Amino acid sequence: MIFKVPRGTQDILPSETWKWQQVEKVILEACDVYRYKEIRTPIFEQTELFQRLVGDTTDIVQKEMYTFTDKGDRSMTLRPEGTAPVVRSFVEHKMFGYPDQPVKLFYTGPMFRYERQQAGRYRQFVQFGAEAIGSADPAIDAEVISLALDVYKRVGLTKLKLVINSLGDKECRAAHKEALVSHFNPHIDQFCPDCQTRLEKNPLRILDCKVDSGNPLIASAPSLADYLNEESASYFESVKSFLEDAGIDYEVDPNLVRGLDYYNHTAFEIMSTSEGFGAITTLCGGGRYNGLAEEIGGPSAPGIGFAMSIERLLLAMEAESKIFADEPTLDVYIITLGETARRPGFKLLNELRAAGIRTDLDYMDRKLKAQMKSADRLQARMVVIIGEDEVTEGAVQLKIMADGTQEKVPVGELVEKIIKNTTR
Amino acid sequence: MIFKVPRGTQDILPSETWKWQQVEKVILEACDVYRYKEIRTPIFEQTELFQRLVGDTTDIVQKEMYTFTDKGDRSMTLRPEGTAPVVRSFVEHKMFGYPDQPVKLFYTGPMFRYERQQAGRYRQFVQFGAEAIGSADPAIDAEVISLALDVYKRVGLTKLKLVINSLGDKECRAAHKEALVSHFNPHIDQFCPDCQTRLEKNPLRILDCKVDSGNPLIASAPSLADYLNEESASYFESVKSFLEDAGIDYEVDPNLVRGLDYYNHTAFEIMSTSEGFGAITTLCGGGRYNGLAEEIGGPSAPGIGFAMSIERLLLAMEAESKIFADEPTLDVYIITLGETARRPGFKLLNELRAAGIRTDLDYMDRKLKAQMKSADRLQARMVVIIGEDEVTEGAVQLKIMADGTQEKVPVGELVEKIIKNTTR
Repeated sequence: MIFKVPRGTQDILPSETWKWQQVEKVILEACDVYRYKEIRTPIFEQTELFQRLVGDTTDIVQKEMYTFTDKGDRSMTLRPEGTAPVVRSFVEHKMFGYPDQPVKLFYTGPMFRYERQQAGRYRQFVQFGAEAIGSADPAIDAEVISLALDVYKRVGLTKLKLVINSLGDKECRAAHKEALVSHFNPHIDQFCPDCQTRLEKNPLRILDCKVDSGNPLIASAPSLADYLNEESASYFESVKSFLEDAGIDYEVDPNLVRGLDYYNHTAFEIMSTSEGFGAITTLCGGGRYNGLAEEIGGPSAPGIGFAMSIERLLLAMEAESKIFADEPTLDVYIITLGETARRPGFKLLNELRAAGIRTDLDYMDRKLKAQMKSADRLQARMVVIIGEDEVTEGAVQLKIMADGTQEKVPVGELVEKIIKNTTR
Repeated sequence: MIFKVPRGTQDILPSETWKWQQVEKVILEACDVYRYKEIRTPIFEQTELFQRLVGDTTDIVQKEMYTFTDKGDRSMTLRPEGTAPVVRSFVEHKMFGYPDQPVKLFYTGPMFRYERQQAGRYRQFVQFGAEAIGSADPAIDAEVISLALDVYKRVGLTKLKLVINSLGDKECRAAHKEALVSHFNPHIDQFCPDCQTRLEKNPLRILDCKVDSGNPLIASAPSLADYLNEESASYFESVKSFLEDAGIDYEVDPNLVRGLDYYNHTAFEIMSTSEGFGAITTLCGGGRYNGLAEEIGGPSAPGIGFAMSIERLLLAMEAESKIFADEPTLDVYIITLGETARRPGFKLLNELRAAGIRTDLDYMDRKLKAQMKSADRLQARMVVIIGEDEVTEGAVQLKIMADGTQEKVPVGELVEKIIKNTTR
């Protein structure tokens, strides 16, 4: 029987993980500077959490969730996104009582959506996300956007576009909803069955339906921008001012609605403008979600956050030909010749490693030439050669690969000599 | 509706994640020195993979797996352990063809077992594991054990015990199996129904049955040690020699059988001997698994590996009162007084962060005193105070918290001055 990685998922192989580690390092560094602290929630949650918070009428909840019944007969779902679990944790652990509000959190980890397969889309993908919960200050909207951009900047991306919009508050959304119903209702039979359900429950979702996206009635639908009340409009103006203070360029796109129900006020996306990039250019999406904590029984705790796909960040780096510094290679490769050299070689291996020196040797019982080839391939800076003579004499050959020089070194002086030649 | 973290899982809160990050850093450093490269496999795999490799008669497969049917009607299982996915990936990606054998891999990530709830046991838990696949050299058994111990050493653990055993090869196991059947068969009606099934399929599993562990027939069962053939015994002796060369102490425990079917030859566990530690003292377990790659259609690729729980590593650190260095605190807290100071304060915040300085300010519209309290609580090294006067003058107050000194600094000189006061 041949086993394969599950359809729509991928193995990240040893030749690739170095990049992932570097991205994660950058994320830690950026979040440290912005004082966002990591939180880790489980891979799965009660299914109702996502139904309630992401929204019953969204594609995610209707079609894309990995839902299963556990052995205790509870319905669980592999998290399709990170905000609902973080808000659940915020409420459950009473973080609204922490002395320093807002609580600023980030997470990095796998998310799961059973989507149709296409290039660059995975059913298990990794998101870095940040959430600031507990403040309705428009300045923090700008901070959150700035953090996302900072991570991209730190990995070298320059071809980026920030698009923002305001989705207004409950009042504006109710007025807009009514206008949408009037707009679509007379022609709803032209739309897919899902949209017919959405008309009643959540007509906003019709605007990002994948089936009906070509229908001209979508382009001509009433814009939320025309329904913003004074408070929402003024909030949006403040967000824009703070973005300017932070030196961040943006475009306003009145058609930007995110595919999750919980957003209000600020919504944003960061796109790659790199020519080498594929059809789906969105790298990061986020927005404000006042009311989300109340929705699950918590106190009022206005929040804002974003999520970005690490897979797409790496694709964008590729499109812009940005690369990380090379992975460090071996300091020392130990070559042993003959059976008697084996154990002294292994002992030395352990001594060098204990001193923090990247060291390896042959575990395949190969000849000198093959071992030397490994040393070359692994780009070892130094090679130590131990043969029978060397064992007898208590000394080894030390070769510096950069200049090919070789000298005999007594075993007692070797570690010190190697440390001198090792730059960290 | 109140939502809670799923039973048996946990949120790792912002006050705790720092420790996890430090452990992960240590793991990266140790694996770097030993030249083990990270691999990341998906959270779930085809169910048959675990049935085949972990073994149909194990508790893991029989009782503890999170199995579900995906939307494509395939049976999937949240990975209960890391070795089977890594071997699957090794075979699928033809890593046996990589020029440098053995292929040395490590992983860190969540595993899932639906176990009875008890202190320190989670249904989602995090394992760090390493696998060296492609060599049958006994020296690499010692290397793998050494890597596990090195990680513990690097986090400061000293109260550890390494226990090893040999499970022999196929031939010895067959002879031992026969002896076990003869031993248990006359009295099998004293045993639980699972054990009655195991008698035929895999009598070795009777030895670690949780239900029948008190039965004296288990203590008196024939020991595998008496059935080791010459080759297996000599392999075991070599492993012990290499452990000695690596300066590693060990105990041989002939009763050590791991709860997975795939082990042969070397099996080992690392235990905490700390008095403060709980009832379950095993921190890490591993062993050799020659034949595992063939089991799923790959070529012969003898392997050895281990897995350790990060939760238990942290518990062991607690029991030995070992702690990580403190998380770095804020460099600068910016206090703004009045509406006019708000935007200049936010601008400065962004400038400082762009310079890599850990900076924060108030997003709750609070008074001076409350902002000062935050600066204290967050242990900011410096406080910048911006009031209306300061905005007019183009200068701010800079307070060094260590000695309480305060001076007026022109905005243009501030960033440089702060960098001088920031130690990295």
